[in-house]
Amino acid sequence: MTNTGVTNTGVTDTGVTNIGVIGTGVIGAEHIRRLTTAVPGARITSVTDVDLDRARAVADSLAPGASVPATGAELIESPEVDAVVVTSWGSTHRDYVLGCIAAGKPVFCEKPLASSSTDCITILEAEVAAGRRYVQVGFMRRYDPAYLALRAAVHGGSLGAPLLMHAAHRNPALPAHFTGDMVVTDSAVHEFDLIRWMFADEIAAITAYTPRRNSRAKDGFPDPLVLVLELANGVLVDVEVLANARYGYDIRGEVVCEDGVAALSESAGVVVRSAGTVALGVPTDWPERFAAAFDIEFRSWLASVAGGEEPTGPDAWDGYAAAACIDAALVSLHDGGRVPVTLVDRPSLYRP
Amino acid sequence: MTNTGVTNTGVTDTGVTNIGVIGTGVIGAEHIRRLTTAVPGARITSVTDVDLDRARAVADSLAPGASVPATGAELIESPEVDAVVVTSWGSTHRDYVLGCIAAGKPVFCEKPLASSSTDCITILEAEVAAGRRYVQVGFMRRYDPAYLALRAAVHGGSLGAPLLMHAAHRNPALPAHFTGDMVVTDSAVHEFDLIRWMFADEIAAITAYTPRRNSRAKDGFPDPLVLVLELANGVLVDVEVLANARYGYDIRGEVVCEDGVAALSESAGVVVRSAGTVALGVPTDWPERFAAAFDIEFRSWLASVAGGEEPTGPDAWDGYAAAACIDAALVSLHDGGRVPVTLVDRPSLYRP
Amino acid sequence: MTNTGVTNTGVTDTGVTNIGVIGTGVIGAEHIRRLTTAVPGARITSVTDVDLDRARAVADSLAPGASVPATGAELIESPEVDAVVVTSWGSTHRDYVLGCIAAGKPVFCEKPLASSSTDCITILEAEVAAGRRYVQVGFMRRYDPAYLALRAAVHGGSLGAPLLMHAAHRNPALPAHFTGDMVVTDSAVHEFDLIRWMFADEIAAITAYTPRRNSRAKDGFPDPLVLVLELANGVLVDVEVLANARYGYDIRGEVVCEDGVAALSESAGVVVRSAGTVALGVPTDWPERFAAAFDIEFRSWLASVAGGEEPTGPDAWDGYAAAACIDAALVSLHDGGRVPVTLVDRPSLYRP
Amino acid sequence: MTNTGVTNTGVTDTGVTNIGVIGTGVIGAEHIRRLTTAVPGARITSVTDVDLDRARAVADSLAPGASVPATGAELIESPEVDAVVVTSWGSTHRDYVLGCIAAGKPVFCEKPLASSSTDCITILEAEVAAGRRYVQVGFMRRYDPAYLALRAAVHGGSLGAPLLMHAAHRNPALPAHFTGDMVVTDSAVHEFDLIRWMFADEIAAITAYTPRRNSRAKDGFPDPLVLVLELANGVLVDVEVLANARYGYDIRGEVVCEDGVAALSESAGVVVRSAGTVALGVPTDWPERFAAAFDIEFRSWLASVAGGEEPTGPDAWDGYAAAACIDAALVSLHDGGRVPVTLVDRPSLYRP
Repeated sequence: MTNTGVTNTGVTDTGVTNIGVIGTGVIGAEHIRRLTTAVPGARITSVTDVDLDRARAVADSLAPGASVPATGAELIESPEVDAVVVTSWGSTHRDYVLGCIAAGKPVFCEKPLASSSTDCITILEAEVAAGRRYVQVGFMRRYDPAYLALRAAVHGGSLGAPLLMHAAHRNPALPAHFTGDMVVTDSAVHEFDLIRWMFADEIAAITAYTPRRNSRAKDGFPDPLVLVLELANGVLVDVEVLANARYGYDIRGEVVCEDGVAALSESAGVVVRSAGTVALGVPTDWPERFAAAFDIEFRSWLASVAGGEEPTGPDAWDGYAAAACIDAALVSLHDGGRVPVTLVDRPSLYRP
Repeated sequence: MTNTGVTNTGVTDTGVTNIGVIGTGVIGAEHIRRLTTAVPGARITSVTDVDLDRARAVADSLAPGASVPATGAELIESPEVDAVVVTSWGSTHRDYVLGCIAAGKPVFCEKPLASSSTDCITILEAEVAAGRRYVQVGFMRRYDPAYLALRAAVHGGSLGAPLLMHAAHRNPALPAHFTGDMVVTDSAVHEFDLIRWMFADEIAAITAYTPRRNSRAKDGFPDPLVLVLELANGVLVDVEVLANARYGYDIRGEVVCEDGVAALSESAGVVVRSAGTVALGVPTDWPERFAAAFDIEFRSWLASVAGGEEPTGPDAWDGYAAAACIDAALVSLHDGGRVPVTLVDRPSLYRP
Repeated sequence: MTNTGVTNTGVTDTGVTNIGVIGTGVIGAEHIRRLTTAVPGARITSVTDVDLDRARAVADSLAPGASVPATGAELIESPEVDAVVVTSWGSTHRDYVLGCIAAGKPVFCEKPLASSSTDCITILEAEVAAGRRYVQVGFMRRYDPAYLALRAAVHGGSLGAPLLMHAAHRNPALPAHFTGDMVVTDSAVHEFDLIRWMFADEIAAITAYTPRRNSRAKDGFPDPLVLVLELANGVLVDVEVLANARYGYDIRGEVVCEDGVAALSESAGVVVRSAGTVALGVPTDWPERFAAAFDIEFRSWLASVAGGEEPTGPDAWDGYAAAACIDAALVSLHDGGRVPVTLVDRPSLYRP
Repeated sequence: MTNTGVTNTGVTDTGVTNIGVIGTGVIGAEHIRRLTTAVPGARITSVTDVDLDRARAVADSLAPGASVPATGAELIESPEVDAVVVTSWGSTHRDYVLGCIAAGKPVFCEKPLASSSTDCITILEAEVAAGRRYVQVGFMRRYDPAYLALRAAVHGGSLGAPLLMHAAHRNPALPAHFTGDMVVTDSAVHEFDLIRWMFADEIAAITAYTPRRNSRAKDGFPDPLVLVLELANGVLVDVEVLANARYGYDIRGEVVCEDGVAALSESAGVVVRSAGTVALGVPTDWPERFAAAFDIEFRSWLASVAGGEEPTGPDAWDGYAAAACIDAALVSLHDGGRVPVTLVDRPSLYRP
């Protein structure tokens, strides 16, 4: 199926969208479970993976009856599939996303949109050529109730103009395969998007600092990493990224405005007094911390798909801008100094 | 349709349960919206109300295509309906619930289960005669993530045996039609069920205190009301009920155990520093405070219905026990003193 | 020296008050340390104790040069002593206080003012006969910055009339010699005074509840103890007293008013994120929790003594009213039910 | 009186230290009040000021009987003065401090120690020549109970090595005479000392950032100012300084360690629920926030003076190091970029 110019509404007669999922690893399986048990209006009709046995096993246990085509390209073309979720390895994203655009099918692509900012530009060009946005990128933080409340407070009018922000992104520990650069490409990237969304502005320059190294990190591994981000409008953001925070998964954000300050608060529902302390629990990892965000993200995406509308969430431009920030942050991390973020002109297809 | 002894699994071939809703007032409409947009696996196929025009309007806007039978009894019998949600006025609950039991259909009944403990006993007898539990009562607090975390902390083993609890139920204001007794029957009733569930024990006696009256309350209106509840196992609970708390809708609970204390914490996602304070928001009313609880409650109920299983939530016995607590609390409120809660023997059909 | 009717200003020419201390146990030594190192304007010139060796040791280490008279009566009469601090066993308080009144010397008496309400009345009569108040009772909570802030919030005008209060008094553990009655006479007594002060009203009736007993407490030991206090103006207070809270020393208070609620907050200066929690420390015991209160209490008392004025802190009437509450609470604890608090008429010498 | 090499113990026979105060402006008067009413062991025997009428008025109201010499030099030489408090304008500090060293008298000097790092070096040289430390600098934060608790948590062993810190210094508003540089010399200077003390290490480099300007600030006024401090041991600190925070005086600090994070918590004693929020108060300004710190600072200083010992608080080296940080921060603020902090070798007189 090629893009006929006709917008596929992505919805069956019965009000249910048929979804194909490419990539059935941890996050793919998690998304399938979410789409089948926590979010109304979706049916998983097809799944595939570079490991077809894993795809079949996931289909059997989580989406009985789903087909298992041999490749992602086949899945995209399948008439059983109205919209696509891409959760495969990052290096494969570009081609799957381009395939969905070509097929005129909405695609939800986990971050990164592509492995490089150049590849992201290729995707922008494909959407511009198609005259329509098909892509939503999986920056789920935009749907987190706490971040939404923070953004509402910042722009609610009572705190005045925002001036600066402090952010921290603390992972309890990182998988063994994590390279130093992945602290930027996999962790800090969420902050890049979040900050662009929070302030509705682009990041103009990045300076990386590597404080005293955590003794758990290998030589040269940037843990902690502190990034100073300068936005085009002058807002300054310092971002702390911890690869080995040990104590839990902790995401913090505080925005300083002219008349007041708003910050994410603790999220635990219970406070316990015991053994000399009054204590709240900290989330153990991101699936716990962002459970509600993922639910709402998919509800929002499915609503746009079901309505035959362009996605209202983070789009290909957002994916591209995050990639450009990654480029600048890595240059600063490796070579030092303040590095400008360079962006191509924004096509009018994308919201200002 | 009468109860054939065959368990209706309450699910269509396509994995979707056909739901009929009796009562399309505020909470009925809210539940329909929830069942159609936030919870997967439900289809609203039929709605009715004592005001049929309202039922038709709600059907048109929230459940297009749903039938609108002339009475609840008709709806219960309809082959389009696999399971029933009862959100009509409390005085009508008994007959609808009995109708569902007779029809062998699962029924989710908003509290109260019935207008009196005697009527509740009639329902118990009907289920015992049917040999199966069909009824789930809408005590949604059992599904609130914070209350679940509190219960987990209390029974987690690290705090020791629970000894006492402080609870507060603060309404910002009450509707004009609220009578003094409704502070017990509509507000405190939630605490009765919550406390029974929290401690897996029955309430044995109740003493009502009416402190200095809020100047916003009418003469004789029990605002505030403080109830001291004594559980069979000796746990003591003081419950504060405010009809006119003004500042927000605030539900608090703190359980004192031998080695520590666990309490509900603040639920706001954002903390704001402005105008001399550091502040968290308080929910404005119960639909905001218990939004997640309602979602999870319906997911849980639908799962039991879809699986053809008896409900795992609060059942008819829980509805009856709450009614018996209401009886005792009202006697204490009107006549003073400590009033024992009397219960019939618990049929073996109900979980110990 | 007998009361000549001339008010002793209690201050030397050099602006320093000469203090005698009767009772050099733990709290006596603590007070001497405080008066010599943390509060300006006092000199400890004389100390004594039923155990004269202990008195001499304390004098040597904390108040070098202080005399050690053989009895409290001698100390009171000593021209070296301008004002007296009584920290001996409670049963000796009455006579020392009466001695100070007779000598016309200001006396700071640790609670209890006397062992019984009858003895307290004798003290009231002595002050009335002398036509002047000489006595301040050591209810230090009235000087705690947090309680002062709570009282200011309650009466600040923005929260409306107070309606009820929740209080908790949690000791980490109690000394082996503690009897069940001492939970009332030594722990709850602080709440009696605090509540009278907070609401500027008398306690009219008390009901004691003994929930499920802490397994660390002996048979019949009231741990926990819950007291429901009814004030003359209708304000209701529930007081939880824990003898074995284990986790720390924790004093809590929350006042519910018509337009809002004010409560003591956590007092730790540091919040620590570690091992899955965000935690604040809880005080280990009362000397830590009320360190600032004791400082301010003595500064205030010394200021009144130095100025030759009657004390502005809790006076003999307050000591008497607390004793009357103890009487009622013990009757309810032993015999059950709601017990009125009976008071003699308040002499005009005491502030209304 | 010149330095005879004999250490003046700074204490009279009666255990009271005679203090002279140079500078009777707002902070001088505040210190006199504190030394006479809140801290034992001090007598103000002499005060002076560039405005002698003001000095006389302050003496009359706060230190009756104190002499009012015509100059600070005279006050320092006076036999009535055992120890000196310098609270005059910063530009006069150097000469008064040098005078005290020459006279062999302990001196408590409000920050700054001197107007330039060069002048500070002159003071270091004078103390080295005298072979004794006489100077304590008024960095009161080291005595703040919350900062002390934070430092104890960081070095307590359970959190692992410190890696980085976030600090914020928010003034509600600044006096009209404040220049942009004073944001560094008067506000950020407190952070410089605090951070050196917190980590027992020197600051090696400073980078200044000026985010989007607060619209209340004049053109070119650095509000906000963000400073990134790199310590010799690799610890990185970001410091936010707000000149016009509006909402209150707020001092925040959070130290990230290998195994956990410790931070200053809220300091209010009362939490108020009203008008839709749960709120804690924020201090209105520094005298309120640091009241306890000032008390403890003077108690500590007086103890060292009374004991004839060198001060244990921040000394001339600390004053010098802070001045060197000011130098670097101002260069970065004006010229941009990362500026190293250069220090002379530390004389062995000063603690490592």
